[in-house]
Amino acid sequence: MTDPVTLALNADQLIKAALREDISTEDISTNAVMRGYKKGKADLICKQDGVICGLKVFERVFKILDPDTEIRFFAEDGEKVTKTQHIAEVTGDIRVILQGERTALNFLQRMSGIATYTAEVAALLKGSKTKLLDTRKTTPNMRLFEKYAVRCGGGNNHRYNLSDGVMLKDNHIGAAGGIAQAVKAAKEYSSFVRKIEVEVESLAQCEEALAAGADIIMLDNMSVEDMKKAVKLVGGKALTECSGNVTRENIKNIISTEVDYVSSGALTHSAPILDLSLKNLKPLEE
Amino acid sequence: MTDPVTLALNADQLIKAALREDISTEDISTNAVMRGYKKGKADLICKQDGVICGLKVFERVFKILDPDTEIRFFAEDGEKVTKTQHIAEVTGDIRVILQGERTALNFLQRMSGIATYTAEVAALLKGSKTKLLDTRKTTPNMRLFEKYAVRCGGGNNHRYNLSDGVMLKDNHIGAAGGIAQAVKAAKEYSSFVRKIEVEVESLAQCEEALAAGADIIMLDNMSVEDMKKAVKLVGGKALTECSGNVTRENIKNIISTEVDYVSSGALTHSAPILDLSLKNLKPLEE
Amino acid sequence: MTDPVTLALNADQLIKAALREDISTEDISTNAVMRGYKKGKADLICKQDGVICGLKVFERVFKILDPDTEIRFFAEDGEKVTKTQHIAEVTGDIRVILQGERTALNFLQRMSGIATYTAEVAALLKGSKTKLLDTRKTTPNMRLFEKYAVRCGGGNNHRYNLSDGVMLKDNHIGAAGGIAQAVKAAKEYSSFVRKIEVEVESLAQCEEALAAGADIIMLDNMSVEDMKKAVKLVGGKALTECSGNVTRENIKNIISTEVDYVSSGALTHSAPILDLSLKNLKPLEE
Amino acid sequence: MTDPVTLALNADQLIKAALREDISTEDISTNAVMRGYKKGKADLICKQDGVICGLKVFERVFKILDPDTEIRFFAEDGEKVTKTQHIAEVTGDIRVILQGERTALNFLQRMSGIATYTAEVAALLKGSKTKLLDTRKTTPNMRLFEKYAVRCGGGNNHRYNLSDGVMLKDNHIGAAGGIAQAVKAAKEYSSFVRKIEVEVESLAQCEEALAAGADIIMLDNMSVEDMKKAVKLVGGKALTECSGNVTRENIKNIISTEVDYVSSGALTHSAPILDLSLKNLKPLEE
Amino acid sequence: MTDPVTLALNADQLIKAALREDISTEDISTNAVMRGYKKGKADLICKQDGVICGLKVFERVFKILDPDTEIRFFAEDGEKVTKTQHIAEVTGDIRVILQGERTALNFLQRMSGIATYTAEVAALLKGSKTKLLDTRKTTPNMRLFEKYAVRCGGGNNHRYNLSDGVMLKDNHIGAAGGIAQAVKAAKEYSSFVRKIEVEVESLAQCEEALAAGADIIMLDNMSVEDMKKAVKLVGGKALTECSGNVTRENIKNIISTEVDYVSSGALTHSAPILDLSLKNLKPLEE
Amino acid sequence: MTDPVTLALNADQLIKAALREDISTEDISTNAVMRGYKKGKADLICKQDGVICGLKVFERVFKILDPDTEIRFFAEDGEKVTKTQHIAEVTGDIRVILQGERTALNFLQRMSGIATYTAEVAALLKGSKTKLLDTRKTTPNMRLFEKYAVRCGGGNNHRYNLSDGVMLKDNHIGAAGGIAQAVKAAKEYSSFVRKIEVEVESLAQCEEALAAGADIIMLDNMSVEDMKKAVKLVGGKALTECSGNVTRENIKNIISTEVDYVSSGALTHSAPILDLSLKNLKPLEE
Repeated sequence: MTDPVTLALNADQLIKAALREDISTEDISTNAVMRGYKKGKADLICKQDGVICGLKVFERVFKILDPDTEIRFFAEDGEKVTKTQHIAEVTGDIRVILQGERTALNFLQRMSGIATYTAEVAALLKGSKTKLLDTRKTTPNMRLFEKYAVRCGGGNNHRYNLSDGVMLKDNHIGAAGGIAQAVKAAKEYSSFVRKIEVEVESLAQCEEALAAGADIIMLDNMSVEDMKKAVKLVGGKALTECSGNVTRENIKNIISTEVDYVSSGALTHSAPILDLSLKNLKPLEE
Repeated sequence: MTDPVTLALNADQLIKAALREDISTEDISTNAVMRGYKKGKADLICKQDGVICGLKVFERVFKILDPDTEIRFFAEDGEKVTKTQHIAEVTGDIRVILQGERTALNFLQRMSGIATYTAEVAALLKGSKTKLLDTRKTTPNMRLFEKYAVRCGGGNNHRYNLSDGVMLKDNHIGAAGGIAQAVKAAKEYSSFVRKIEVEVESLAQCEEALAAGADIIMLDNMSVEDMKKAVKLVGGKALTECSGNVTRENIKNIISTEVDYVSSGALTHSAPILDLSLKNLKPLEE
Repeated sequence: MTDPVTLALNADQLIKAALREDISTEDISTNAVMRGYKKGKADLICKQDGVICGLKVFERVFKILDPDTEIRFFAEDGEKVTKTQHIAEVTGDIRVILQGERTALNFLQRMSGIATYTAEVAALLKGSKTKLLDTRKTTPNMRLFEKYAVRCGGGNNHRYNLSDGVMLKDNHIGAAGGIAQAVKAAKEYSSFVRKIEVEVESLAQCEEALAAGADIIMLDNMSVEDMKKAVKLVGGKALTECSGNVTRENIKNIISTEVDYVSSGALTHSAPILDLSLKNLKPLEE
Repeated sequence: MTDPVTLALNADQLIKAALREDISTEDISTNAVMRGYKKGKADLICKQDGVICGLKVFERVFKILDPDTEIRFFAEDGEKVTKTQHIAEVTGDIRVILQGERTALNFLQRMSGIATYTAEVAALLKGSKTKLLDTRKTTPNMRLFEKYAVRCGGGNNHRYNLSDGVMLKDNHIGAAGGIAQAVKAAKEYSSFVRKIEVEVESLAQCEEALAAGADIIMLDNMSVEDMKKAVKLVGGKALTECSGNVTRENIKNIISTEVDYVSSGALTHSAPILDLSLKNLKPLEE
Repeated sequence: MTDPVTLALNADQLIKAALREDISTEDISTNAVMRGYKKGKADLICKQDGVICGLKVFERVFKILDPDTEIRFFAEDGEKVTKTQHIAEVTGDIRVILQGERTALNFLQRMSGIATYTAEVAALLKGSKTKLLDTRKTTPNMRLFEKYAVRCGGGNNHRYNLSDGVMLKDNHIGAAGGIAQAVKAAKEYSSFVRKIEVEVESLAQCEEALAAGADIIMLDNMSVEDMKKAVKLVGGKALTECSGNVTRENIKNIISTEVDYVSSGALTHSAPILDLSLKNLKPLEE
Repeated sequence: MTDPVTLALNADQLIKAALREDISTEDISTNAVMRGYKKGKADLICKQDGVICGLKVFERVFKILDPDTEIRFFAEDGEKVTKTQHIAEVTGDIRVILQGERTALNFLQRMSGIATYTAEVAALLKGSKTKLLDTRKTTPNMRLFEKYAVRCGGGNNHRYNLSDGVMLKDNHIGAAGGIAQAVKAAKEYSSFVRKIEVEVESLAQCEEALAAGADIIMLDNMSVEDMKKAVKLVGGKALTECSGNVTRENIKNIISTEVDYVSSGALTHSAPILDLSLKNLKPLEE
């Protein structure tokens, strides 16, 4: 997501909207006391241990306000960082630094918070065959950033949205008249480049989905024992996924099922931020 | 924020953007199996104890997709809700319910999460003269919703953004050449309807700010003892504010200073969601 | 694409932009002579044999200008229509009918043209196992409508865009250092819900792609003989696709390869329109 | 249309929308295998004989993605080009070339297709006094580009839209109560800088329009004999226009009427594309 | 401009932008004291004599905020109104009336001010053959409304903008190499539906413009005597226009030249508003 | 407002909209005669005495069209200028100068007109303690520019809009059940950084407002004698404001009341423009 094209086409408009949310007319405090250009420098400092994520977005906030702002980075996305670590140095018009600071940090802290939390959860799965997935439970208008943060933290992305992935749930199956019919309809309707995922609630349904040619089978609300049976039944002919609380307590259970993927909404909806701060803003002699 | 005008002018465009994020072309799963209108009903159920917030936004998601969707509410914003409580009933085109569900819940869960967390923190201040404030540390493009959620949880709003409130920090003071000069410049530059807030780091600065005619004095990084002295020094001639961790541990300290306001960024940047879910979606005979 | 949600969220904004292109301030001819509401009726008539497509978009043009416009349809998308056939009846404010006419027909004629041409090409493949695919060679800002028209004509959709499907071409393979590396990188980078397609130019590359776990293999610039060998080599372990001119002349060759899919850019980039016209606009007594 | 101001103000927003249609989040194939900047070069090659058109739009696609992309042109808009001709050379970040390629070609191929087809039709009129016109039968949201392509092919533009030209058709005339009244109303209502065009279906109506002071008379559905009489009747006191199939078969008839203009919707609604391709994309040493 | 289509397509987006300018988040005063729907009624009263203009725009402001607002009009656009006259009655949600009031009046007062001022100037020309024209000296983003107001006041519209009318000034003529060349280039470049206007500064240039086939000749900075000669010289073979201060003092001079049109920038750039006010807002029993 | 951040985030989009209003497709006159870049220079000349305002906005118009345009300024915003004074020099592509001229002047003339008129009114108050305020009676979509112009002319800004300032009028007071209740509700509902303003119509209400803790009291429709009493009654415990015609005639009355602020809608709704013009556009040798 941090390549120049994606930033220019898709991230910039969200960043500008966020900046306009914070500066609906002008920054009256800064404009009251600073009438012209004055060069300055500030340090981006980490205030907690975690995984940093969103540095290009942080940079973009300032570049949108003033393309002449310069950022030197001492870390990169996905890297572990520690409290007091010097992450970056921002040099440019002091007014621009003051006006972009909050928005830049709001993006960076949230993205780093998600990456940090994802890394913690992913660590619990280490050594097993089960991989960690995110969900569509993202903050409205933040999905582009949050799904990227999950990947920086070592997680994997589920479908991006309702338009680029098929997931047949009970209501779809009911409307189609059964799993076989739903899968058939989905294969006909959607592009052949998409895998078909079916949500099942029992071993019988799991068998039906497999027979219908589902590419991914989502085991919903099943007991650990049933999940184990389901995974065995599927036998690698489809990918398997379960959703659930990936906590230290139930992690052994999940791993024991040998399910391919476990998804967690909490990665994006409940991760606290990683605390970061812009310090030591000082005028520079020129 | 939940009056019809604000929803129509300012919330709707953010909600539509969120819907387009989730449906960039069409919902291929639903459209594959449901080719026409079919009336259905679903229940909004609470899965955790907390404070509900965002019901009008939840409703708006469905109304934008189809104005004929009907929502009956059994609770209202700011109300305490409990696990398993039936919050609302959504009736309309099943396709619309399926397509709006995730976006509607993403708004509602986050707003309720913030209201819930704010209520917990506000409870700690109960009985004291100190009131709880939010900050500008909100999620990008979610400020309208998150500041409202803080109020539903019993908190108070600080300035909305850089354009509607004056806050003079060390860099502003430095640029102006002192507190007196900064306050004077701000009074001249900004509308006379705004209060002037000054951030001070010592009792000396506090005295200066008071003399300069500051309306609000923000006590930054001061010891409890200094804050007590500062509040006494101010003696009601300005409002006082401190920022900091409002935890069970340090709450007594904060209250003991008799500061007017304490602000907390965590209200909006680190509250976990309140778990809610749309259940029992069923076709209705007509 | 013609469900109410997709129309409201994604089609309407493109239709409105098209209307504004045609009415940048106001329709000066109509406004010069008609100062008030006058009810009228017009007939949508087919002027060529073909496949009709885009009726909901046609309707939407008038509904956007005036929600009270009524359209009765006597055919539906994907249906074969013949010269002189009465397709629909538009009733409403005559000014609205005159102002929407051109834009409504511009959409409908182009979509029907694509559906008609696709149906002709698809007919050539009838009885074979090979299915017809579209490409990304669509008219700028018309993809939503054109990909739908291909489906109405009996074709199938390839990926929607660069973001929802993986296609590894020679430059990607070169950058990755080989097919195996490229597939591995794509599997790691993209969501697990996506199939991985690899473009190969020789049997050796085809074998490599298969070994690397490609889900779809695109046979590029291969001779008929080589394609036959490639399809045999793949043996159903991946889907196969070729691109090329699906003309009466070379159709037997394509079919003989038993390739799963053949794609054709001409479906969307060179189909002539289907001629349709709005006739008999007459005032109605009320 | 290709001056910098028009591109910046009006073309860029349509080009960006087209790019976002093709890259709704990011190019997952390219980003999977190329993590950083790598300079490359590609050749724009013509694959069919025709008239090239849209080179500045082609360039703009890449410049929007990355202003550092360089394009050298070896031909210019309106020029005849031949199969295998080297039209341009694109140098820049390989990722940018890969991501802009399809959108750039989609514009260029369609514009060149229209220019090519227009040139063929215009050639049929060569030597006569009759000039070729386009219509409002353009592709939605492509009018700016398509009307320009008609001019590059040697055609002329009719009015741009309903707001910048007056055309009084039977329904307008009926509503006004006659041709004289309609022309009078139009002269009063619209700016005096506009010519008034009237559509007539008989010699009697033609005479009426002339008497009413029409600047342009559109001869609708008239026989060749009647058109000849009409043109004579008008005698240069107004411009005359007819619409119709400008094919090799009926071209002599049209020319024989000595009508000033003949319009053709097919120029923009049914021209096939001109086949062009981006070849030989290779990394460059730096 | 006040037909439903123009309002929906082109006026509404400007009105909504104006409303968002005045309500960037919410109306805090109204929302603080009114938590729910309460029906009310208010009267639109004229506070000065003048010409009313913009009633549909006034209505649209409230309808956009709440489609259930009802407006009864007792006057119509272009009508003379007098101090204390009751112009309209607004009935609806009191909160909506309070929130739309200022924006609705800002549009109405300005449009009525322009219509009033235009009517005064047009009256000076009464009885002469010279007609009054507006210019492009309109308020940014208000041209749609202001050009309409000129017409309501009895003036006429010059070209709408740089794209829909040709005006060749000294720099254009210089660049082309002379008047004849400039007119020829313009006729070739622009649509044949446009008249060609040339700005001339001497009788010699006037003659040249006429010979070149100019449709409109703009007499720039000429003495009254020279204008008289120029109008005679043109002899009805082209339209003539002069620009200048249409004041009581020089009106006789202008009329004496028998020029066809005189344009005045002051109509749109310097007309004071017409004072109107919303009075007697009262709750209604229901 | 003229700092780079405000221009980039908030002014540019309004300027671009204004440019698109004037160039909806392309400048056909200029493009007809100038096919390529030609450097030129023009002078911005003042044609009336007044106060200049909007130079950065003037510059931005050209920079948006072509970043290489250069402007040298010989005056700055807020400065008194005189007839024939040379204000600035614009150097760049002649086509760009011709295309931006009208929009640039439309902004500059209106802003300077407001600054000039404000300066005249402010001069009447000189020596008194009463300060001049603007209102929300601004031109739709021009508030950002017009409020700034008032400040350049020596006036002061009232609240920006309904969202950033509290003003309790009779309807609010009525709905709340009294002044005390309304003030209490407003203090609870709005951010503590806002002052509360109450509109009163009598001395009794004034007393009530003061008791309720109003920060600003607006004396509405009071006699000079009552205003004097009200100001005395308030005694500096709140700010006082009156609205009204600040004319040479009644100025002594207003001053005699010793009210803190007097507001005038005419500053923004009825100031005539300051006449400025772009002269001497000439090609430059390079």
